[in-house]
Amino acid sequence: MKKKLIHLPAGYVRELGVRIFTALGAPLPKAELVVETLVEASLTGHDSHGVIYFLRYAERIRKGFIRPDAEPMIVRESTSSALVDGCWGFGQVTAMRVMELAAEKALRGVVSAVGAYNCNHIGRLGYYTSWAARRGLIGLMFVNVGHPMVSVYGGVGRVLGTNPFSASAPTGDDPFLMDYATSTVADGKVSWAIASGMRIPSHWIRDKNGRPTEDPNELREGGWLLPFGGHKGYCLQLLMELMGAALTGSRSGVDPEIGPPSTNGILAIAINPEGFVGLEAFMKRSREILRMVKESKAEGDGEILIPGDPEWETRRRRLEEGIPIPEPIWNQILKLKDELSISL
Amino acid sequence: MKKKLIHLPAGYVRELGVRIFTALGAPLPKAELVVETLVEASLTGHDSHGVIYFLRYAERIRKGFIRPDAEPMIVRESTSSALVDGCWGFGQVTAMRVMELAAEKALRGVVSAVGAYNCNHIGRLGYYTSWAARRGLIGLMFVNVGHPMVSVYGGVGRVLGTNPFSASAPTGDDPFLMDYATSTVADGKVSWAIASGMRIPSHWIRDKNGRPTEDPNELREGGWLLPFGGHKGYCLQLLMELMGAALTGSRSGVDPEIGPPSTNGILAIAINPEGFVGLEAFMKRSREILRMVKESKAEGDGEILIPGDPEWETRRRRLEEGIPIPEPIWNQILKLKDELSISL
Repeated sequence: MKKKLIHLPAGYVRELGVRIFTALGAPLPKAELVVETLVEASLTGHDSHGVIYFLRYAERIRKGFIRPDAEPMIVRESTSSALVDGCWGFGQVTAMRVMELAAEKALRGVVSAVGAYNCNHIGRLGYYTSWAARRGLIGLMFVNVGHPMVSVYGGVGRVLGTNPFSASAPTGDDPFLMDYATSTVADGKVSWAIASGMRIPSHWIRDKNGRPTEDPNELREGGWLLPFGGHKGYCLQLLMELMGAALTGSRSGVDPEIGPPSTNGILAIAINPEGFVGLEAFMKRSREILRMVKESKAEGDGEILIPGDPEWETRRRRLEEGIPIPEPIWNQILKLKDELSISL
Repeated sequence: MKKKLIHLPAGYVRELGVRIFTALGAPLPKAELVVETLVEASLTGHDSHGVIYFLRYAERIRKGFIRPDAEPMIVRESTSSALVDGCWGFGQVTAMRVMELAAEKALRGVVSAVGAYNCNHIGRLGYYTSWAARRGLIGLMFVNVGHPMVSVYGGVGRVLGTNPFSASAPTGDDPFLMDYATSTVADGKVSWAIASGMRIPSHWIRDKNGRPTEDPNELREGGWLLPFGGHKGYCLQLLMELMGAALTGSRSGVDPEIGPPSTNGILAIAINPEGFVGLEAFMKRSREILRMVKESKAEGDGEILIPGDPEWETRRRRLEEGIPIPEPIWNQILKLKDELSISL
């Protein structure tokens, strides 16, 4: 049954989130960053990677999987690169440090690559890559998830993680932004369907016997996700594993019996257009290309969308209408608020 | 009707190719490189990008689109990057220069990005990325094709090129190698089906009225290719356009009335694992991951393939059995040989 949605102003949700994570031991700037990324995910329509994680991260802090005060450490560095030990702090803190380092190096040089390991769940990749794009850089992020949920092409059962990829580029308008799991959908979208009491399209998952199903709960009962786009999506899924895990020393393959859930290995690349045609020329050309695509002929009465457009549009709408949260999730968040004696 | 295949030893085809291009004005080393990439494409099973191009490049040289003696020129350079003017020489000569520069810079530093414009058709991307992988680097290539043949997601008609992407990584064994058009298939695979007198799967192309068809000739009569993998493949298709064309200043969008066919804008990235976990550790971990994937449970009686495996296997077989060429193509090549008074 479809669950009722509560709509809450972003400012209120943000303040509540910061109070929750500081109450759980996070220093204020770290709590603010984590909450900012989750609220931005909700605002841009990626509910599966948004406010719902207040609950999950709280649980992971309590279990010791997330060390809320841990500071990422650079263990290896060159002019154009770095390798960062996330020290099992918030994944967001590690990912932001990675992208900041990459941006700094690409703004000074032209291109940079920064990796990280011992890194918890970093949330929505688009936050970091579009952050770089708003600073005039092309940002790429190759990520593996150390938690098998996805079959490989031609295979059955869980072998690799949902291994997301994101790229963002400055255009002078809102950035071009692509950001997706290399599985048919992100695991979180199935969780969101469960939390919202919704059915899912039958091509998203297989049940434990390998059969298509519209019941999202089957994923929690031995089912699995599939790579998107046949063998071509499968290639990307593997590339994320090699770049995110093998290159950085992050966890890969079968789930360890003990350890944080959904760890992420990260490899970020930043490219400064000033080393090529120049930023202004790059943005002008990109706008022309994207406009040409957007104005090309659509099927039927449809509309051609540019990657990023739905996100930025949803963000504008939700800033006015509030963030929608399924009632059961909101009730759990309120329960957590009470447990932590937060008055707001 | 399916056409007869002639099988020819790689060595003979190679020598014939070099004689053809030198007769058409190419300096020996450039002719050798171009032919090497085409013969390697045929050997690894990518017939659509192989020996068939002896004919097309010959035609383009005669029309003045390819300048067989042109040398690529670096127009902008930093420690980690370069922008190359291909000067409308052979695309292969430009692409190889790009990858050599990228490799040199990544071996000295850790990461590099090199772009090129005024660049003719470069053939199979995997040649360059796997060349980098065999030198201990991860090689990525983002390419746009300045010749619209592919619709965009949700759209009808030709908007962008087949915009291929390739990534290759060293493993200690044959490299991991992914290399594909971001369209359902490469344009050349349809040409190959036409040359071989074969039908094609109905999801490859649309006819000029937007209907699925199994007749490859429909692509030459106003039809178009589609991006692979729905909106996720479409995002990659656009990323190739921004990286390959907007960043380098290469041709994009509608075909100019006059100009070389199938131009390529290139952005190559090379990453040196020594800046991260180290090359040996990276290769060991990659082998473990790929073995784990390969040995995971397959559907039915199937087998899990690793990207690159089919290529390297086909190469070993064809080195023994020869390169298969449809008789009509071979006859055209023999005609060209006679026109150029080549005795072999």
